[in-house]
Amino acid sequence: MPKNVEPVYYSDYLKLDKLLDAQAPHSVRYGAEAHDEMLFIIVHQVYELWFKQVLHELRSIHGEFSAPELDDKGLYLVAHRLRRVLTIQDLMNDQVGVIETMTPQEFLEFRDYLVPASGFQSIQFKELEIRLGLTRATRIAFDQQSFYNRLNDQDRAYLEDLEEQPTLFDRVDAWLARMPFLEFKNFKFWEMYQQAVNEALDHDETIVRETASDAQQLETELAGIQANRDNFAALFDDERYRELQQEGRVKLSQKAMLSALFITQYREEPAFNLAWQVITSLAEMDEKLTIWRYKHAMMVQRMLGTKIGTGGSSGHDYLRRTTEQNRVFKDFFAMATYLLPKSALPELPPSVRKALGFSRETP
Amino acid sequence: MPKNVEPVYYSDYLKLDKLLDAQAPHSVRYGAEAHDEMLFIIVHQVYELWFKQVLHELRSIHGEFSAPELDDKGLYLVAHRLRRVLTIQDLMNDQVGVIETMTPQEFLEFRDYLVPASGFQSIQFKELEIRLGLTRATRIAFDQQSFYNRLNDQDRAYLEDLEEQPTLFDRVDAWLARMPFLEFKNFKFWEMYQQAVNEALDHDETIVRETASDAQQLETELAGIQANRDNFAALFDDERYRELQQEGRVKLSQKAMLSALFITQYREEPAFNLAWQVITSLAEMDEKLTIWRYKHAMMVQRMLGTKIGTGGSSGHDYLRRTTEQNRVFKDFFAMATYLLPKSALPELPPSVRKALGFSRETP
Amino acid sequence: MPKNVEPVYYSDYLKLDKLLDAQAPHSVRYGAEAHDEMLFIIVHQVYELWFKQVLHELRSIHGEFSAPELDDKGLYLVAHRLRRVLTIQDLMNDQVGVIETMTPQEFLEFRDYLVPASGFQSIQFKELEIRLGLTRATRIAFDQQSFYNRLNDQDRAYLEDLEEQPTLFDRVDAWLARMPFLEFKNFKFWEMYQQAVNEALDHDETIVRETASDAQQLETELAGIQANRDNFAALFDDERYRELQQEGRVKLSQKAMLSALFITQYREEPAFNLAWQVITSLAEMDEKLTIWRYKHAMMVQRMLGTKIGTGGSSGHDYLRRTTEQNRVFKDFFAMATYLLPKSALPELPPSVRKALGFSRETP
Amino acid sequence: MPKNVEPVYYSDYLKLDKLLDAQAPHSVRYGAEAHDEMLFIIVHQVYELWFKQVLHELRSIHGEFSAPELDDKGLYLVAHRLRRVLTIQDLMNDQVGVIETMTPQEFLEFRDYLVPASGFQSIQFKELEIRLGLTRATRIAFDQQSFYNRLNDQDRAYLEDLEEQPTLFDRVDAWLARMPFLEFKNFKFWEMYQQAVNEALDHDETIVRETASDAQQLETELAGIQANRDNFAALFDDERYRELQQEGRVKLSQKAMLSALFITQYREEPAFNLAWQVITSLAEMDEKLTIWRYKHAMMVQRMLGTKIGTGGSSGHDYLRRTTEQNRVFKDFFAMATYLLPKSALPELPPSVRKALGFSRETP
Repeated sequence: MPKNVEPVYYSDYLKLDKLLDAQAPHSVRYGAEAHDEMLFIIVHQVYELWFKQVLHELRSIHGEFSAPELDDKGLYLVAHRLRRVLTIQDLMNDQVGVIETMTPQEFLEFRDYLVPASGFQSIQFKELEIRLGLTRATRIAFDQQSFYNRLNDQDRAYLEDLEEQPTLFDRVDAWLARMPFLEFKNFKFWEMYQQAVNEALDHDETIVRETASDAQQLETELAGIQANRDNFAALFDDERYRELQQEGRVKLSQKAMLSALFITQYREEPAFNLAWQVITSLAEMDEKLTIWRYKHAMMVQRMLGTKIGTGGSSGHDYLRRTTEQNRVFKDFFAMATYLLPKSALPELPPSVRKALGFSRETP
Repeated sequence: MPKNVEPVYYSDYLKLDKLLDAQAPHSVRYGAEAHDEMLFIIVHQVYELWFKQVLHELRSIHGEFSAPELDDKGLYLVAHRLRRVLTIQDLMNDQVGVIETMTPQEFLEFRDYLVPASGFQSIQFKELEIRLGLTRATRIAFDQQSFYNRLNDQDRAYLEDLEEQPTLFDRVDAWLARMPFLEFKNFKFWEMYQQAVNEALDHDETIVRETASDAQQLETELAGIQANRDNFAALFDDERYRELQQEGRVKLSQKAMLSALFITQYREEPAFNLAWQVITSLAEMDEKLTIWRYKHAMMVQRMLGTKIGTGGSSGHDYLRRTTEQNRVFKDFFAMATYLLPKSALPELPPSVRKALGFSRETP
Repeated sequence: MPKNVEPVYYSDYLKLDKLLDAQAPHSVRYGAEAHDEMLFIIVHQVYELWFKQVLHELRSIHGEFSAPELDDKGLYLVAHRLRRVLTIQDLMNDQVGVIETMTPQEFLEFRDYLVPASGFQSIQFKELEIRLGLTRATRIAFDQQSFYNRLNDQDRAYLEDLEEQPTLFDRVDAWLARMPFLEFKNFKFWEMYQQAVNEALDHDETIVRETASDAQQLETELAGIQANRDNFAALFDDERYRELQQEGRVKLSQKAMLSALFITQYREEPAFNLAWQVITSLAEMDEKLTIWRYKHAMMVQRMLGTKIGTGGSSGHDYLRRTTEQNRVFKDFFAMATYLLPKSALPELPPSVRKALGFSRETP
Repeated sequence: MPKNVEPVYYSDYLKLDKLLDAQAPHSVRYGAEAHDEMLFIIVHQVYELWFKQVLHELRSIHGEFSAPELDDKGLYLVAHRLRRVLTIQDLMNDQVGVIETMTPQEFLEFRDYLVPASGFQSIQFKELEIRLGLTRATRIAFDQQSFYNRLNDQDRAYLEDLEEQPTLFDRVDAWLARMPFLEFKNFKFWEMYQQAVNEALDHDETIVRETASDAQQLETELAGIQANRDNFAALFDDERYRELQQEGRVKLSQKAMLSALFITQYREEPAFNLAWQVITSLAEMDEKLTIWRYKHAMMVQRMLGTKIGTGGSSGHDYLRRTTEQNRVFKDFFAMATYLLPKSALPELPPSVRKALGFSRETP
């Protein structure tokens, strides 16, 4: 119990005088009140409040990753706060259903009063994208050319400054790349893993050669196995991995990718458990954001058909294209590309297992 | 396209300067920043924004019901806006999951700074309850005695004034009670219905007497049928109905109850369709509010255990008791008490069917 | 109460002996039990049960639309059952989250035992698509060429037979096209609407000419208005409408499109209300199905990365492409393309309003 | 890739011939098909499939807890599978909305054919309750007296046998009670915690005495602090704790309660993290089950009003009473009763922290 705390009144604490005075429908200003404009305003304001909360969490997560060393308590906090972000995202995705209770006709009653405002001008949402790791180069053309032109000078400067700073993606990549167990004494994860991959594929090839019913099937299946060999080869070869990066097929650095793979394959080892939760949550955050973009694109199509949005963009098409393009942590999401089943994995050497375990099981 | 519309900028339109400046954690003020207080504030602010939206809809619905006559377009609007309220309620119910991402321990970090503020002081929520039809007499004792004492004078006066005005329940009851088809030429719905009820119960009695395997089973089943007869009898008898009202077992007036029953049983008649949607939506609104109270009660227990809330109430018990007590439209929800299966219902007389139909089916 | 009803026991009624004996993990058969295969089976079985229920509803809806005349009670049933389908779809969409509790690694433990089975072989799902109105020509190439090759003869024959029958889309199009009020005495909806459109666009043009700040802005805005004029022109011109159809930009017949527009614009008229609910529900059914496809595509990517699915398809890409291609009722969804705000619409002539109203307001 | 795997066909794998042949509406058997009985059957069948899945997970979780020692990999599995159960529960709770698309009148069309079957006869659900830890003594009276009478001999015998076996609650209690760090070398958690509690309450008392505005407020606040002292005293005193158990106010053994408290307060210590996730998930499982019971009770009221259920129970009241009574892991849920804010907690001694940490931070 702290000392000298002033008594608190609910509406003062929540600053409801400000909050509930911030809805000013423009249709009222122009003398043609549209009942549904209130919904339009409040839905967007609720999104902005959730954006503020998500940014609050992401900034603290970014802070933990920026520390010289991310200790266990820090990693616990990161995992905990990412789960909160995911819960908020679920709500934001469901919230699209609320705006859809407004018919397109009801929207038309006040739409003309809002020109040329646009959701593209949400600075908090753009901050969220930039903080996660969306770079100007990654944005699709429409966004690259026109986005910053719609902002006032102050907002543009704020975002351009943000673009100069390390992103969450950068921090996570660096954290994974320096993960200490990737190479531990005379154990090298990638050597062990490469061997396991080769054995699994050799085994598959033997079975295919023994059981194929005819020459054509044999050829098809062998081609599949070879494609898989090539796929994995790039993972272990510096140069080919760089090519994948340049083609935009992977974003993580090679070392970070290998660490992520190590952690994912052995996530039940105590020292990997929280790290695996973090990787998974980042992938889910991306997934939920993608679904939000998709639902949002559908909603815009419903409201405007094939017309042009208040901001001049043909919203549906733009939004739909961003769903795939703007995924920051897609490498985590598609990690399955490189996974082996547990049964094809070797046991870790005892010294590694010990290093990944607790200091002692019982006192 | 309206004339002379000023160009609009997203953040001006949504008054984000006010909105995003309304979060002032008290733990910061006292020099002991608790990361999670931001979540606590924003979750409550989002609820308040949704309350504002729900009140916006309820006021317009109330307005429609208060018109001398509620025509079809008005009824369409009521049905449409009630569905929106239900959609928002679903979101509000799911939002409990967001506050639950805060552990009780995290809550304790700033809880002492908030004394004695309490959710009981949410004027918008109390307005919502009062507008729907929760009267001071219906509130449970704790609420009756202490609630208004926690408010400042202005807030208390505002709510007490509201309590003097007709509620949505009153308006809906009056609208149903004056429903024109209950008694139409020489057709009286209750006479027809009473006869159908009697026939159905007589039929049941015959079967029971023919098929009961022994005396004891016969007795049990006949007692069940008699209970049903008594149940229905109160519906058709003015005095016994008044007793049900006085015992608090029904709230609707007798005429309104009969109209609601008529509409529910023949909801596929064109003139009843929207009315039935409205009745059902009011029942669902009540149900969702009840589930919100219940989840809220659970959440308070999780945060505080059996401790006392910031406002001095043992929140969980209080909230749990309100779930049943505070249901305004429970009669609609429990309408099944008086329903017959379609197959036991007579066809409506042609003149009534015609009056309930469209002016012409084809041009 | 029916006569001579046999007493019923819960597990007999639900045939739980069959139902709960229908889970036979193949990993067990091969002596390598994978704990998570049970989840994989049950999730798919639950989907199949919901498909059965959705087909049960769609068949009854199809039946109502196939009757020589769809009367009000029939339309009420259609609206009611479509809402049920939407509720089930929400659940099916959320159910993707259950399969996502299985990690890709856990899936790999039993995946090889399932080759070459594939969700493409779900006959109920294909029936659902075909019944709605997805034609072989509309399916994307992958589907067209390979889909029917994976089915056994009986299943293929069943679906090919279904493809010969009228679809729900066909029935709905016909129902709208014969809607009686489109042309009523000397009232022709399209004449009235065309005039309203022209007036609205002329008005916009006047404002643009009066208020444009410079020549370039004037040109841009006039071009926008002209695009809108062209857009609408196709709606009223038989030949140009046929072109839109041939380009695949609209699917509805011209008359059906005009009726849908009439109903949407005047949905508060009693005779239009249920019809509007039906149109909206069909659009939402499509939307929810599309979101299901999208979430499903994401889930497949998570499970397999960029690998090839058990059925030989690169699932994620295929599924993602189907989301846009397979929308049957997209015209309803994008109806906003042709909407005017209420304030730009003329009042309907009294004789039309009367014909759309109830036979009498009061007895 | 396993050898000699038979090619698999989707419908064979899922045994769709059995699964989709298990819906036999009784209204059809009696020649009075009720369209909605299909929904009733399928909704219950889907619940039974999810029950099967939840039991599959609970049995494996029970197995882990029954091992002589629950190692880290085991605890990881428990946490992982409990999260899956929670996800399924969310879906089951939302599924109540599907059955609610059936109106009470539609239910009446086939209800009489189902007598006296009842959801009380779901053996899987009862198994779930018993496995979690619901004992016959805890069940409310109605359940105690009549439940087992409605089952056939085989089902009753199955459940009575289950009641003899250790429950998940028993296993979890034993696991917590033997948690090694509660007493570690010369560190005793409860001594440290008791001291922290006393200091916190002494501190509160000092502030209250310094700042109370008048004698009455002082008395009230001091009484509150004393109530808190008594509350905590029971936690540390064997005899008083036994009284709490006998009064049914706590269920956990005293040692298990202290361990749960230790883990909750220091959950960011690596060795406690998974244990804390497990405790929290068990509390949430209970919460979600409670909400399911509550929503189920509401649904029964909606379908039957105040009538008696097919099984002879007045379902709504019964179900509502079970919501509070049947909570197995309520002690975890109400753990906040005994929590202190982080800032009032002492640092753990270095030797304890070391023992709770990883064997080494860096290789």
